[in-house]
Amino acid sequence: MLKEIYFDNSATTKPSQNVADKIQETLLKYHGNPSSLHAKGFEAETVIMCAKRHIAELFGCEPGEIYFTSGGTEANNLAIFGAAHARKRLGNKIVTTAMEHDSVLSPCRELERQGFRVTYLEPDSKGCIKIEQFLNAIDKETILVSQMMVNNEIGCRLPTEAVRAIIEKKHAPALYHIDAVHAFSKIPVKISALNADLITITAHKMHGPKGIGALFCSRNTRILPILFGGEQQNKLRPGTLATALIAGFGAAAEEAKFAPEMLKKIEKLWKRCRELLLNIDNAKINEVSHHFPYILNVSILGIRSETMLHYLSSNGIYISSGSACSNGKKSHVLEAMGLSKDRIESAIRISFSKYNTLKEVEYFVSKVKSGIRKLCKSK
Amino acid sequence: MLKEIYFDNSATTKPSQNVADKIQETLLKYHGNPSSLHAKGFEAETVIMCAKRHIAELFGCEPGEIYFTSGGTEANNLAIFGAAHARKRLGNKIVTTAMEHDSVLSPCRELERQGFRVTYLEPDSKGCIKIEQFLNAIDKETILVSQMMVNNEIGCRLPTEAVRAIIEKKHAPALYHIDAVHAFSKIPVKISALNADLITITAHKMHGPKGIGALFCSRNTRILPILFGGEQQNKLRPGTLATALIAGFGAAAEEAKFAPEMLKKIEKLWKRCRELLLNIDNAKINEVSHHFPYILNVSILGIRSETMLHYLSSNGIYISSGSACSNGKKSHVLEAMGLSKDRIESAIRISFSKYNTLKEVEYFVSKVKSGIRKLCKSK
Repeated sequence: MLKEIYFDNSATTKPSQNVADKIQETLLKYHGNPSSLHAKGFEAETVIMCAKRHIAELFGCEPGEIYFTSGGTEANNLAIFGAAHARKRLGNKIVTTAMEHDSVLSPCRELERQGFRVTYLEPDSKGCIKIEQFLNAIDKETILVSQMMVNNEIGCRLPTEAVRAIIEKKHAPALYHIDAVHAFSKIPVKISALNADLITITAHKMHGPKGIGALFCSRNTRILPILFGGEQQNKLRPGTLATALIAGFGAAAEEAKFAPEMLKKIEKLWKRCRELLLNIDNAKINEVSHHFPYILNVSILGIRSETMLHYLSSNGIYISSGSACSNGKKSHVLEAMGLSKDRIESAIRISFSKYNTLKEVEYFVSKVKSGIRKLCKSK
Repeated sequence: MLKEIYFDNSATTKPSQNVADKIQETLLKYHGNPSSLHAKGFEAETVIMCAKRHIAELFGCEPGEIYFTSGGTEANNLAIFGAAHARKRLGNKIVTTAMEHDSVLSPCRELERQGFRVTYLEPDSKGCIKIEQFLNAIDKETILVSQMMVNNEIGCRLPTEAVRAIIEKKHAPALYHIDAVHAFSKIPVKISALNADLITITAHKMHGPKGIGALFCSRNTRILPILFGGEQQNKLRPGTLATALIAGFGAAAEEAKFAPEMLKKIEKLWKRCRELLLNIDNAKINEVSHHFPYILNVSILGIRSETMLHYLSSNGIYISSGSACSNGKKSHVLEAMGLSKDRIESAIRISFSKYNTLKEVEYFVSKVKSGIRKLCKSK
């Protein structure tokens, strides 16, 4: 029997030992304020520059294009409010999707209250949003296109590489923002291919610490700040930089360099898990058209998500009923896909990391089976 | 000879070993997402609750009144924008001081652009702002009073305990915000005495990590969020909580419980330092009326702040030329006090912590003296 199985890596990942050591070392050795003008300040600044270089390397961008934030939520808020307010004289339309994370949807709703018009592109039943939908929605009034690269609940990949061309074709004054929180370090997130102006990432989805994220903001892009204060980070994001967390983020980015091999490994876990779940009568995989193997969403018909989640948790297996940020609310993503009520209320999300194994997958599925037997009987 | 003297504790402090260990432990053992509904999530939530209790104890408030932010800058922004926007129907006047940190002044200037009227109370030449100034400025249109408890550049204490009574006397619909970043854990910051609605604190000024702060927001106070996203922290501040940093913040708060004894120790350092500096011809203490002994500001006439700072840094002594956040800009605080150009351009700030000693103070002053000899000669 396996002691503990952590299959909730889309909620957050376990920091690697190396990341934790780097944070500890930075806390104790490089504790100066990176804005200070003395030697202790320079030491801390050097730690930050080094981390920036590791992150920039994964993007294929300049270190100076990385702006640290407190995480994905703040980076998404900065990108969306910052772009909308900087471009409000050029138009008032925003294009996004109905599958975005709350940290994109909520700022968009706030902008609607301020008078902006927002189009939420709807996915089909397999989570697919077509290029044509972007083509129809983006026009000369569009000042921002914001979309995720990978959906965090159902693990589908969204089209990204054609969007920039559409913005140009339609002569839209739009900035292009990608929420790459779940994609970064797992599949290639390269500036050269994406041609995005703004990209959100966060450390804790890639074995870094919680509390630190970043916004890639291309050299030629001007957005407005949402926080106001000192001179840090070109005044786009003031506040004392969190040196130790940034060092941990850099260490996580450095470790994430071998993503292609990792993707193959994760693909095997995903395939095996799907295959085994398909053999269970009550289990209905919530299939997607372009799958991202780190995430698998399945409904165990007749058993509420939370009930299965707690059963598995009591057996040392950790999965989720959707996004951790929504605290158990009904999934807006599965709703947008038009899934039935039964299907939505019994959906669970399995999300893998490099630390997971085939053996864990097999044990997990055996526990799902025993859960079905036990939980159906007790009804 | 002493190897290294860190006298820049108002820029940032060195995390204690205990704080660093707590962070490391949390990173590796309690890595679940505190919003997750399984056992790993509950473990992380417990870590956060425990830290909240330690912080709440210092304030004498309920743990539920603590909202974590990425630091003092974000907490000040949240308090100021959150209060102004929540109360804009009740009035449009804000009262603050000309000595505030940039993370208060910049949001106030942004609110002026949005149509709010802001009064900046001016200190006298000793950093003193009188109760009467608050009394004259606060009126029925005032929706927010925001002030620091202790000034970070000159180390003066501002009046706080009478402000609530003035707000009530004037029937002002104002929320009362205190920036207690430099005061918290060093002098008593008790809700019962201050009667504030909102108080900003940050971990890295009290031997905690950088990247985490908090806003005390009293149970009866409603302000609007500045970040939008998930359900965390009653939606007032969404985003995955930075469990490890919060644990470190809690450990720092726990350690800070014996502040009265510490204050006496620091008072001795301050007195000795001032006494020794008074014996130097070129050194002019920038005196304040109500001193806060953690900070001492002195001008070394004839030697630019940065020149002395670099000389001392090359001798392993770390001080600052003002606020670290302002990156060497001319001090708006010394300007507001009406000090002469010579005095402002030669000002240095010495700021102590519990780790400093009298021996360090003496060595520091001897190096200031040798600096004067060397730097005046080389002109």
